[in-house]
Amino acid sequence: MPLKNLKDNFADWFDEIIRKADISDNRYPVKGFNILMPTGYEIWERIRTLLDQKFKVTGHKNAYFPLLIPEEFLEMESEHFSGFVPEVAWVTHRGDTPLKRKLALRPTSETCMYYMYSIWIRSHADLPLKMSNWANIIRMDTKNTKPLLRDREFLWNEAHTCHATAEEAEQQVLESMDIYGTLLDELCLSYLTLQRPPQDTFPGAIYSIAFDSPLPDGRILQSGTTHNLGQSFAKVFGIRYLDVDGNTKHVFQTCYGLSTRLIAAIIAIHGDNQGLIIPPRLAPTQIAIIPIHFKKEKKIVNQKAREVTTTLSEHFRVFLDDREQFTPGWKFNEHEMRGVPLRLEIGPRDVVQNQAVLVRRDTREKTTVALPKLPNKIREILDEISSTLLKRAQKLLHESIRDVEDLSHLETLRGFARVNWCGSDTCSETIKEYSSGGEIRGAKHGVSEKPFGQCIVCGKKNVHVVYVAQAY
Amino acid sequence: MPLKNLKDNFADWFDEIIRKADISDNRYPVKGFNILMPTGYEIWERIRTLLDQKFKVTGHKNAYFPLLIPEEFLEMESEHFSGFVPEVAWVTHRGDTPLKRKLALRPTSETCMYYMYSIWIRSHADLPLKMSNWANIIRMDTKNTKPLLRDREFLWNEAHTCHATAEEAEQQVLESMDIYGTLLDELCLSYLTLQRPPQDTFPGAIYSIAFDSPLPDGRILQSGTTHNLGQSFAKVFGIRYLDVDGNTKHVFQTCYGLSTRLIAAIIAIHGDNQGLIIPPRLAPTQIAIIPIHFKKEKKIVNQKAREVTTTLSEHFRVFLDDREQFTPGWKFNEHEMRGVPLRLEIGPRDVVQNQAVLVRRDTREKTTVALPKLPNKIREILDEISSTLLKRAQKLLHESIRDVEDLSHLETLRGFARVNWCGSDTCSETIKEYSSGGEIRGAKHGVSEKPFGQCIVCGKKNVHVVYVAQAY
Repeated sequence: MPLKNLKDNFADWFDEIIRKADISDNRYPVKGFNILMPTGYEIWERIRTLLDQKFKVTGHKNAYFPLLIPEEFLEMESEHFSGFVPEVAWVTHRGDTPLKRKLALRPTSETCMYYMYSIWIRSHADLPLKMSNWANIIRMDTKNTKPLLRDREFLWNEAHTCHATAEEAEQQVLESMDIYGTLLDELCLSYLTLQRPPQDTFPGAIYSIAFDSPLPDGRILQSGTTHNLGQSFAKVFGIRYLDVDGNTKHVFQTCYGLSTRLIAAIIAIHGDNQGLIIPPRLAPTQIAIIPIHFKKEKKIVNQKAREVTTTLSEHFRVFLDDREQFTPGWKFNEHEMRGVPLRLEIGPRDVVQNQAVLVRRDTREKTTVALPKLPNKIREILDEISSTLLKRAQKLLHESIRDVEDLSHLETLRGFARVNWCGSDTCSETIKEYSSGGEIRGAKHGVSEKPFGQCIVCGKKNVHVVYVAQAY
Repeated sequence: MPLKNLKDNFADWFDEIIRKADISDNRYPVKGFNILMPTGYEIWERIRTLLDQKFKVTGHKNAYFPLLIPEEFLEMESEHFSGFVPEVAWVTHRGDTPLKRKLALRPTSETCMYYMYSIWIRSHADLPLKMSNWANIIRMDTKNTKPLLRDREFLWNEAHTCHATAEEAEQQVLESMDIYGTLLDELCLSYLTLQRPPQDTFPGAIYSIAFDSPLPDGRILQSGTTHNLGQSFAKVFGIRYLDVDGNTKHVFQTCYGLSTRLIAAIIAIHGDNQGLIIPPRLAPTQIAIIPIHFKKEKKIVNQKAREVTTTLSEHFRVFLDDREQFTPGWKFNEHEMRGVPLRLEIGPRDVVQNQAVLVRRDTREKTTVALPKLPNKIREILDEISSTLLKRAQKLLHESIRDVEDLSHLETLRGFARVNWCGSDTCSETIKEYSSGGEIRGAKHGVSEKPFGQCIVCGKKNVHVVYVAQAY
């Protein structure tokens, strides 16, 4: 049963592949609460390990903060929280007993963490403070839910830092972008780093920068965000420190986060009509080893396949598929569908010639390799697969961007439209209307792009270049 | 400021050390919801890695299951859930909108997981199914909360398995006990494996076995439990499979779990009046390297300390404490308090003689070692520390057990009282009264202990040997 065509039916393809490839199951009877299945979970665990390594060398510390947030915390930060309010799930009872005050399930942990920061931070010696929380997040989104792309419960990492000066906070934003950028490269994902327009900045932040990745259906997925919070939260929560001269000052803060949505990006951007292609660094199985034989050769081929498996297991994540109830052809399809980056076939002739055949998932290219050379050759091919996937993703990004100077051309918006914008709310609203729900995602961070015309709506000349897209 | 005396003030000592050593902070203003601080969290991460390794080789798969459970699921399993009902936190609203049906925050995930199992399991080829869930758990305990020992939110792992036959489920219980037993050995913890009396068996289970560890204050901590569930949940949730002959049958199930409570056991059992002693496998820092010098020797000593740090970092988790604002004596106390298993001192004479001094946290024993021999010697000493900690814990366990034949002797119950019991509820209640809240924790699993008298309450002769203790 072939998968639905990716190009024409992305939504159907996505729903089908995440079920078949053991990524997510949406049959749990609470809307938006889905099971992150073993393959999906293992991908998340590997993302976690990659991020933790980077956090460790940059002085971040993991801790676990509470799920429940008192109502009065949210009221303290009502500006920040007003956006979350309709999505907040409230605990009101313990057994049959009403609680004296209701408690929110965390839609994000600023208030919880910053309350503790105000206790912990006393002097400049306590700064910088960089903490990270791996947690489940609950947002009772009123829009349509969709597994991984829009779950009501998802897993994420949120990092929250405090600094003595505005410059250090600014520096921290750059460090966070460097960390996320390196991580996304390792996941073979492409992205634009866009500074959100003021209308779409995280409430309480000075500015917000997002990693926006285009999916094959022409919509954009936010793969991560980072915010320079300035002192607004520090003032609300009283996060103060004594500087070297004995003066009491408010700290400067940043925060950044990414979630299991990243798995959706990985699946959508790398997958094809045969199924998933999982980047080698994330793949639960990197090599599927498949013995091929007729009855009389079974013993000798299986024996050699086991030897190869033992050797390769020292270097790679290997699965020997010697199940007898399935044909080699069935196994090829199965491991292709599941996105295993490399297949190793070994048959009677290969045993005689002391060799094996490697088949790449991404290009389907076949290579015959002498057994002693396998580990080095495989390492080389896995690296090539990573770089091919990254190049494809970059090509997808590149092709998804086009310059648009005429409002009516926004009507068929796919990917990013690069437009000139005067900065006004009115024109932003008009862009939204014309692009059927598209929105200004922001201007490129750290680059001043030269305008190529007048405001796409009002025709004013004082404009800057922004990217418009429909987002998940 | 010395810590409170462990032996005389265990409760105070525990509260103080978990705060000072960065394990848990209870100043968050929701009762029983505490912060698992970086050192505590890192210990949990290492426990997680150790357990995941054992799960992997025994065919368990991790997945993530939803936090929220529909009320009707709990009603389906009312026998099982009646114990949890007063402790359940209920979500009743999304924003200002009441939900059509209220949703429970998981106090455990049987109902959630078994609903999905009934969808996933179709035939004998789907069995055995062994899944594990790393999750936060909410139980709004009405008793006094206490960080790590009795949190209202805690982190845990729960594994849930399905099997074709009762024998395989029985076998799985043994496998789970082997896994937990090996893990607890690695954590240097001692325990009795006690089969709970029928009065205290997990509702719905055929039998429950717990790992009970005595703490220095004479109370017992349950470090893990495993349950043979038989077919009771399978029948409620309709978890059926087609066997090889085409007959539809209910599966047999087991489940087992352990939580961040384990961290409390590690702290309480290994700690002393100087602070924590963290077993080498779990320690965030295994070796604290402390250069000791007067001003003129500073450069040469620090240089050598950095070299040693670089070499040892390849093999161990090392922290070079070359902070200038603290004296060596202060650093000794600090790293002792934090439980770093090994200290390495290096001074001017050591540089000349190309050596360093190692000081064990557990015995305070000092050894001078030539630098080239350091890695091997350290490996050896860390193993010795592990085995010393385990032996101490076993001694604590051994000394905590005494035979009691007279009810009045239960009044001063500390540790385990070994008693003869007829099995009746009445006598169980009497034991509870006499032991001021102590309870029958069960009989040794897998061993038939010979009675040494008559029922401690009613004097009946048909008795078995059980262990009575006060538990956390």
